[in-house]
Amino acid sequence: MAGRSLARHRVVVVGAGFAGLRAARDLADVAVEVTIVDARNHHTFQPLLYQVATAGLDADDVCYATRGIFHRQSNARAIRAQVVGADLGARTVELADGAVLAYDHLVLAAGGVTADFGVPGVLEHGFGLKSAADAVAIRTHVLERFERCERDPSRIDDGELTLVVAGGGPTGVEMAGGFAELINHVLRRDFPSVDVNRARVVLIEAADRLLGTFAPKLGRSAERKLGRIGVEVLLGTQVDRVTASSVVLADGRTIDTGTLVWAAGIKANPLGAALGLEVDRGGRIVVDRDLRVASHPEILVIGDLAAARDIDGSLLPQVAPAAIQAGAHAAKVIKAELRGGRPVGRFRYRDKGSMATIGRNSAVVELPSGQTVTGLAGWVAWLCLHLVMLIGFRNRANVVVNWAWNYLTYDRASRLIIEDRPLPPRVGGPG
Amino acid sequence: MAGRSLARHRVVVVGAGFAGLRAARDLADVAVEVTIVDARNHHTFQPLLYQVATAGLDADDVCYATRGIFHRQSNARAIRAQVVGADLGARTVELADGAVLAYDHLVLAAGGVTADFGVPGVLEHGFGLKSAADAVAIRTHVLERFERCERDPSRIDDGELTLVVAGGGPTGVEMAGGFAELINHVLRRDFPSVDVNRARVVLIEAADRLLGTFAPKLGRSAERKLGRIGVEVLLGTQVDRVTASSVVLADGRTIDTGTLVWAAGIKANPLGAALGLEVDRGGRIVVDRDLRVASHPEILVIGDLAAARDIDGSLLPQVAPAAIQAGAHAAKVIKAELRGGRPVGRFRYRDKGSMATIGRNSAVVELPSGQTVTGLAGWVAWLCLHLVMLIGFRNRANVVVNWAWNYLTYDRASRLIIEDRPLPPRVGGPG
Repeated sequence: MAGRSLARHRVVVVGAGFAGLRAARDLADVAVEVTIVDARNHHTFQPLLYQVATAGLDADDVCYATRGIFHRQSNARAIRAQVVGADLGARTVELADGAVLAYDHLVLAAGGVTADFGVPGVLEHGFGLKSAADAVAIRTHVLERFERCERDPSRIDDGELTLVVAGGGPTGVEMAGGFAELINHVLRRDFPSVDVNRARVVLIEAADRLLGTFAPKLGRSAERKLGRIGVEVLLGTQVDRVTASSVVLADGRTIDTGTLVWAAGIKANPLGAALGLEVDRGGRIVVDRDLRVASHPEILVIGDLAAARDIDGSLLPQVAPAAIQAGAHAAKVIKAELRGGRPVGRFRYRDKGSMATIGRNSAVVELPSGQTVTGLAGWVAWLCLHLVMLIGFRNRANVVVNWAWNYLTYDRASRLIIEDRPLPPRVGGPG
Repeated sequence: MAGRSLARHRVVVVGAGFAGLRAARDLADVAVEVTIVDARNHHTFQPLLYQVATAGLDADDVCYATRGIFHRQSNARAIRAQVVGADLGARTVELADGAVLAYDHLVLAAGGVTADFGVPGVLEHGFGLKSAADAVAIRTHVLERFERCERDPSRIDDGELTLVVAGGGPTGVEMAGGFAELINHVLRRDFPSVDVNRARVVLIEAADRLLGTFAPKLGRSAERKLGRIGVEVLLGTQVDRVTASSVVLADGRTIDTGTLVWAAGIKANPLGAALGLEVDRGGRIVVDRDLRVASHPEILVIGDLAAARDIDGSLLPQVAPAAIQAGAHAAKVIKAELRGGRPVGRFRYRDKGSMATIGRNSAVVELPSGQTVTGLAGWVAWLCLHLVMLIGFRNRANVVVNWAWNYLTYDRASRLIIEDRPLPPRVGGPG
């Protein structure tokens, strides 16, 4: 491994998600100086955020301090900062506090943000599910609804116990299933005086089936299983607008609710446009087949931020395996250039299959071969894969403990309302 | 166990801390209807909050949903509400939303709040350590200081890396030791570009020794060990006032700091005065030797809210074992009255000894016999006792995982800055 003193070639990686982490780690064995920049101080394991939102896991189980990831990588350092601009000619990025960071290679891996597709009210009244703070906010909000309805049952008439999830992809399916299980197994027992049978979980999807990127029979399987645990699935249904107390559908129907989780899609982080790079309709930065920006080949773009294409010309899916593979490819490209330009093979996406869990003992899995697995076998596969992908022994061990607890007791121990900030001393209740 | 239909005698317990929980649980086997009221939806295991504040444990590890505690106790229910008043003649308590709750026996167990002892600035600028939200606020604040000093090292000159703890009792000693270990083992590695040697942990105590309620040699032992891990201990030192950027001492010295944890003491929850009951100087409700209010013997007061006295006339210490024992006694008094007034023996506090941990492999323990244990043996005893006292298998298992991780790796995995609320989409960093 190259010592710090030999490292001269500066690689700045923007974003500590799946793509950025993989690129930075794969550069451990070459004489470069890697700086990984993220606005948060931790990597977030987004595939399990829905379990934080439904009180099955702690927020700390799915986050990992970025600085800790690089303790043992002597050529890398992590800093917490927000990239707000760049001087592509001078090869520097600008941070929110005015500092600049010089690079020889820039790897943009800033990911995606919630896309509202222009639907009014989504950003004001809906919840995204991109960060641990998002997930905890959903958890607190839903628990508060049940508390309020216990104090005043008339609120149920106003839809306070109606939880709406928009978007029938894996995130939406998992979120809706998680809500249904939280209500059926936990909140029903927690709130004996509330008529929990009147609680609703509604999953809205614009297309005519769930899990549009999966085989059709898996979408139908998910729909059946969600129905069995009480989720109302509305297919072919579009959201027209969202208010503080309702979701109005395009066909004129109104669902009274104070809770909308918007899992209908993401768009690229606006970083690409902010840096003046060419972006596509979704804000993704246009890259060549080596994930480089054509006009600035020293800039690589990976993960959800890149309009990267597979060899057949199709856009890569915005999923974790694609991000990880792109991160590895970016590191290879940089290494090849350092060695003197011997080209690597072009980026080629290896589809690892897709999976979504619906609830207890139930998941749908589609293998790259097209084979499908459902039910308990799929669910066990889902559990194992997510455990393996988590970073760090501690997080894995905590997740195993919590999953075992949830499975054996039907409980969700993290159903805690922890206030945002310390409260002033007050009368009643422990201070 | 009495079925719910037979239960008529209404017991309202205010506060789900150690005292209130014990009283409510000990009433499981009699024909009463127990309602436990707390402003939070969870019991907080306060003795381990300092570990949440120093990133060693997750907030969710030390909290337990109160409703879950009573799932299996058919004569009890938990509600989340704030008690704001009472009509002692009509035997009702009033909740913040205007609802009233009728009782036949009222058990007040609302605990304590941070006491500023009239020192200006403590409540505005200092952190208390009474809730999970307090602990997470301290964690976030301290990590932010290090992040800021990495971006701008001149901030160290302003005391940004100086952490002050006021109060040399067990909480203050554990807090200061936890800070020192977090800095020495974790933040030093996390922030290689920050001159962490300039970070200071200062423990201020007004008396001339630490751990005033322990044997003097244990206070000296704690002082030595804290010194060894880098804590500056200022004895015989009083805080005159606190500002946003300093702690001013009574002798005129000023410590530049933006971080003060106030562990100098608690006072009773103002509930006693609000209900018009007789209180002592510290706001504690005056009770008879059976923990009853003399003018209203149907009201019992337990835990930190009670001015309860031991048989020798001394006030009970405001510690968990005293609260738990008082809770058990209150349940006995109620049961005796239900049986027809056969009196129980007067409340008698059984001292279980005291302990405080200083850091890795180090704690001080004083047994009721006056024997003392320090070092590794004391530390192991401390770990075991706290594990046993935690509620619930899941929390215990998670704490074991985290302690093992912290011990073996010198890491603190929860050093996460999780924002209070979802952020708007922004440029740079994953959205």
